[in-house]
Amino acid sequence: MSERREFRDLATPEEARSVVEGLDIDPGTETVALADARDRVLAERVDAALDVPGFDRASMDGYAVRARDTFGADEAAPETLDLVGAVHAGERPSVTVESGTAAEISTGAVMPEGADAVVMVERTTETDGGVEIRTAVTPGEHVMLAGADIAAGARALGPGTRLTPREIGLLSALGVDEVPVRSRPRVGIVSTGDELVRPGEELDSGAGQIYDVNSYTLAAGVSDAGGEPVLYPHAGDDFDALEGLLHEAADECDLVMSSGSTSASAVDVVYRVIEERGDLRLHGVAVKPGKPMLVGTVGESAYVGLPGYPVSALTIFRTFVAPVVRDAAGIPEPRTATVAGEMAVDERYAEGRLRYMPVGLVEGSDGRTLVYPVDKGSGATTSLVDADGTVAVEPETDVLAAGDAVEVTLFSPDVRVPTLLGMGEDDPLLSRLLDRIDRPRYLPTGTDDADRRLREGVPDVAVLAGPERPDEPGVELGDWRREWGLVLAPDSEVDELAALVDGDHRFINRDGGSGLRRSFDAALERLADERDAAFADLTGAIDGYDLTAQANESPARKVAAGAADAGLGLRATAETLDLAFVSLGTERVRVRANPDRTEKASVERLRTLLADLQAPTAALSGFDT
Amino acid sequence: MSERREFRDLATPEEARSVVEGLDIDPGTETVALADARDRVLAERVDAALDVPGFDRASMDGYAVRARDTFGADEAAPETLDLVGAVHAGERPSVTVESGTAAEISTGAVMPEGADAVVMVERTTETDGGVEIRTAVTPGEHVMLAGADIAAGARALGPGTRLTPREIGLLSALGVDEVPVRSRPRVGIVSTGDELVRPGEELDSGAGQIYDVNSYTLAAGVSDAGGEPVLYPHAGDDFDALEGLLHEAADECDLVMSSGSTSASAVDVVYRVIEERGDLRLHGVAVKPGKPMLVGTVGESAYVGLPGYPVSALTIFRTFVAPVVRDAAGIPEPRTATVAGEMAVDERYAEGRLRYMPVGLVEGSDGRTLVYPVDKGSGATTSLVDADGTVAVEPETDVLAAGDAVEVTLFSPDVRVPTLLGMGEDDPLLSRLLDRIDRPRYLPTGTDDADRRLREGVPDVAVLAGPERPDEPGVELGDWRREWGLVLAPDSEVDELAALVDGDHRFINRDGGSGLRRSFDAALERLADERDAAFADLTGAIDGYDLTAQANESPARKVAAGAADAGLGLRATAETLDLAFVSLGTERVRVRANPDRTEKASVERLRTLLADLQAPTAALSGFDT
Repeated sequence: MSERREFRDLATPEEARSVVEGLDIDPGTETVALADARDRVLAERVDAALDVPGFDRASMDGYAVRARDTFGADEAAPETLDLVGAVHAGERPSVTVESGTAAEISTGAVMPEGADAVVMVERTTETDGGVEIRTAVTPGEHVMLAGADIAAGARALGPGTRLTPREIGLLSALGVDEVPVRSRPRVGIVSTGDELVRPGEELDSGAGQIYDVNSYTLAAGVSDAGGEPVLYPHAGDDFDALEGLLHEAADECDLVMSSGSTSASAVDVVYRVIEERGDLRLHGVAVKPGKPMLVGTVGESAYVGLPGYPVSALTIFRTFVAPVVRDAAGIPEPRTATVAGEMAVDERYAEGRLRYMPVGLVEGSDGRTLVYPVDKGSGATTSLVDADGTVAVEPETDVLAAGDAVEVTLFSPDVRVPTLLGMGEDDPLLSRLLDRIDRPRYLPTGTDDADRRLREGVPDVAVLAGPERPDEPGVELGDWRREWGLVLAPDSEVDELAALVDGDHRFINRDGGSGLRRSFDAALERLADERDAAFADLTGAIDGYDLTAQANESPARKVAAGAADAGLGLRATAETLDLAFVSLGTERVRVRANPDRTEKASVERLRTLLADLQAPTAALSGFDT
Repeated sequence: MSERREFRDLATPEEARSVVEGLDIDPGTETVALADARDRVLAERVDAALDVPGFDRASMDGYAVRARDTFGADEAAPETLDLVGAVHAGERPSVTVESGTAAEISTGAVMPEGADAVVMVERTTETDGGVEIRTAVTPGEHVMLAGADIAAGARALGPGTRLTPREIGLLSALGVDEVPVRSRPRVGIVSTGDELVRPGEELDSGAGQIYDVNSYTLAAGVSDAGGEPVLYPHAGDDFDALEGLLHEAADECDLVMSSGSTSASAVDVVYRVIEERGDLRLHGVAVKPGKPMLVGTVGESAYVGLPGYPVSALTIFRTFVAPVVRDAAGIPEPRTATVAGEMAVDERYAEGRLRYMPVGLVEGSDGRTLVYPVDKGSGATTSLVDADGTVAVEPETDVLAAGDAVEVTLFSPDVRVPTLLGMGEDDPLLSRLLDRIDRPRYLPTGTDDADRRLREGVPDVAVLAGPERPDEPGVELGDWRREWGLVLAPDSEVDELAALVDGDHRFINRDGGSGLRRSFDAALERLADERDAAFADLTGAIDGYDLTAQANESPARKVAAGAADAGLGLRATAETLDLAFVSLGTERVRVRANPDRTEKASVERLRTLLADLQAPTAALSGFDT
């Protein structure tokens, strides 16, 4: 078995697709109430069991007549007919229209016996006991004959029809209140790994626990594809437990997916289960992300083993599994889930496997769609939401150059290009500004990265902090000031920067690319100058200078959690978390825009929001809540 | 009040749109479980409450080391470190990595204290009690730092974000199991009219009853737009009952829609309710279909009165109301719900109102999308499914000529152009053939109409029956024969055509455009010739010759129901319904294809199915089931 684990013979993506398509996950059929039939797929043809309308129906308000009696009538020479009564919608006619007579009739009412046409009320005048007809009508005029809409026995809807409001309308007209539809394929989801904890439960990070991302993510993906997800309790690496779960899921579902089960230890269990009760058809596919993939059967159920990393699991699910679920559910592939764009930057990749490169989209000038790679490593979950779709990069393509045309397969047809792409410093006030913009995307990559990316022309705006440099890219859109310094435990004795350097304190720094870190280093440089010491001597003296955190609040949170004595941060954060604070300065946060995109509506909106900050009432207008 | 009912001042469509947009249907917010959050819209920003990952995590299988200890190591000069233990995913490290030591580590495991990098297993060799390191690593290599994916305090998802599998993935990673989302707007649906019966209940056609089409249709439309439909029992024209229902619905819903309430009597009730408890803002809009439309408020709820005819009600709902429901639900307008096409035929219309013309689509040669009007009168429900979308025809446009470019707004982004458009004769064998084609559309318009439309180049195929004419359009794809004649009550004494003419029998004919009717008339011509009588004398002698039914089975069904003694029909139908049958002949049903489209896949498929019919095993292959 061990040689299998080495994925020696990776299948090509086409082979993998064909093996997955060969799985039988036909869920059969069921009957649902019409009220629940929306988006379901008809399992069999529905013929009309009755005529619609079920009777000859007046299609105008007016008078039911014998057409022959009106021949020759016009404005100049009206015919007068005797009025024998009236018929309203929803009642059985109590009159018969003989030659020379007429009955008042409402739209939708049953044509009374004898009548074969309706004269619309506008062309008549009621007289004493009679009605003057001022136009001739032909037999059938303003009458919808029984069955004219659809006749009993006629083919109404074919098998495979998806039931949208329109089809539900026709079924209603036919009086159908129960509909034979394809069942939704039941897809069992088993996540494996001792480290997994369900969202909402307590997490012990120190013991390496992480939240189970794949269960709910895949469940939502299954629902999107028209399947019915069934979540099983997550299996640890306990062989018997995993084996039991796989058996249970296989008995209850049309398809079982496990994720994380491509790890060596879980694979052993899956192999054992498949060898006892099924058939292994594929192990490993030459694609990134997602190389480890298992396809086979367990009992009567199909089985697919997905990688454990969420981005990999979702990519493999979407690319290979969702089409098969959709097909079994009878739901067509969504239309127009691709957009054409051009690379915003160069991207090099030479691993010789088909790569589904996650990309983000941004609207460039002239309405061009620019495409930039989003790759934070397959362990990252934020790349799930920071990307809009994928570009399939063929194994032989090593470089995509800026400006190259690419086709992006969107994650769903509902994906929209974000209105605003921002990058740069993390900041609590910025977060509140972003809440006031419709569908922005903001990547808190820090000042240095945002500076570089704005020069490359990728984002709409860069948010820069820390010491100002003379040649910052783009044009300034607005700014605000923030006070920064040391965030400290409430009982800390640290009262200035020197105390941090000279004392014995556990410190947490910000990462090198952040503006705050650059401001901190500048303060340390000044202190080194004052002391005539080397910068490295000071940083070496701070326990934790090299321990960095990614987000603006992170060091403060470590302090609040007791994991550190001091952290680099903002006064605003210290106040929010009820921590002590030693100010080391104030820095200006600059929002700088891509010069080609200052007219973009979202950039204008941000400019307005920034201008509002300067207004004296800004503090009252909700920004500081 | 009466002048209001006359719709004197119709609003323009723009005015109507603006009045509907002015309604307040904001449904507020609620909290849902993560498992139920798919497709919901975030009501507020979600910030990360914890670091992801929550610990410094090994991203490779290998050995956790102090990077400094590996400096200078390479294949030629490996460093050997003492092995102090192992750390697996999901466990708390029990070892500390001091200088000169290493710990075995699995992907996903917590980095042990002291270690700052991972050497991947492929670049190591385990020795007795130690491990040989054959490469240098830098601090942080193959380690994902705590918070590197997303750090505690960072902005994760903004308000207004629609929750797709990706966002659900990120929320899972953050351990969020309850999500604040916008509530779905509750939309109450009240159908009015004494004649309405809910699908599934008994229908009394003679009393003018019809099934309520609008309730379920609009409910499905509301769900599509992200709202939550609430069906109320249908109101008759009883003033008090309707008033009570409107009050109840207004108390319980964000928006109340009534349909059919634009009739004069119902309007009086609606006016009274609105005058007592609300505000009437609009009555009547210059658009077809759908002129009668009411917009206002009832109590705290918004109110829209829709026309009663299903096509009109759904058009007005889609055009004016759905965007507002979608907006309140926070769901963006679906993308690409339009296609460009060209008119297949001329269409004249000169009523001076904006018209949403229902159209069907067919793929012409060269991949062109041809557009043909579908108009069976606004009372028809089949036009709901025979159309794919609408073309907005401006009031000043009187004529659209064949070849004119038009833009079609699809009923939904999921609408696909039917693979096959057929028109012509209604036939039970044909129905079964169509079941074997993926998404065909077949309009049983009869032989004469199909002949004309195929000459115009609209359908892919025409199905013709009745006496053959020398110049039938298109190219023949295949055929079958069917035996036709008189379908009779089991105890009928009619044994030949002459008996029908000479006796006193209630007969039901087929409509003039059907091939069967032409065959019947030819038989009557021959009988007239034999008797040296006029054709009209014979037809005049048949009681019901002018009573026609639309579908092939309809006359037979009337006979089966006792509503007639004899009907024109097929032997197959008589057998299905256990009726007597007098044969009057056999006719050839010809399937003729548009010469430009014989290569179309669906046409090829139909050709194959027709060829299979001729095979000796056809009767066994399911066609006759």
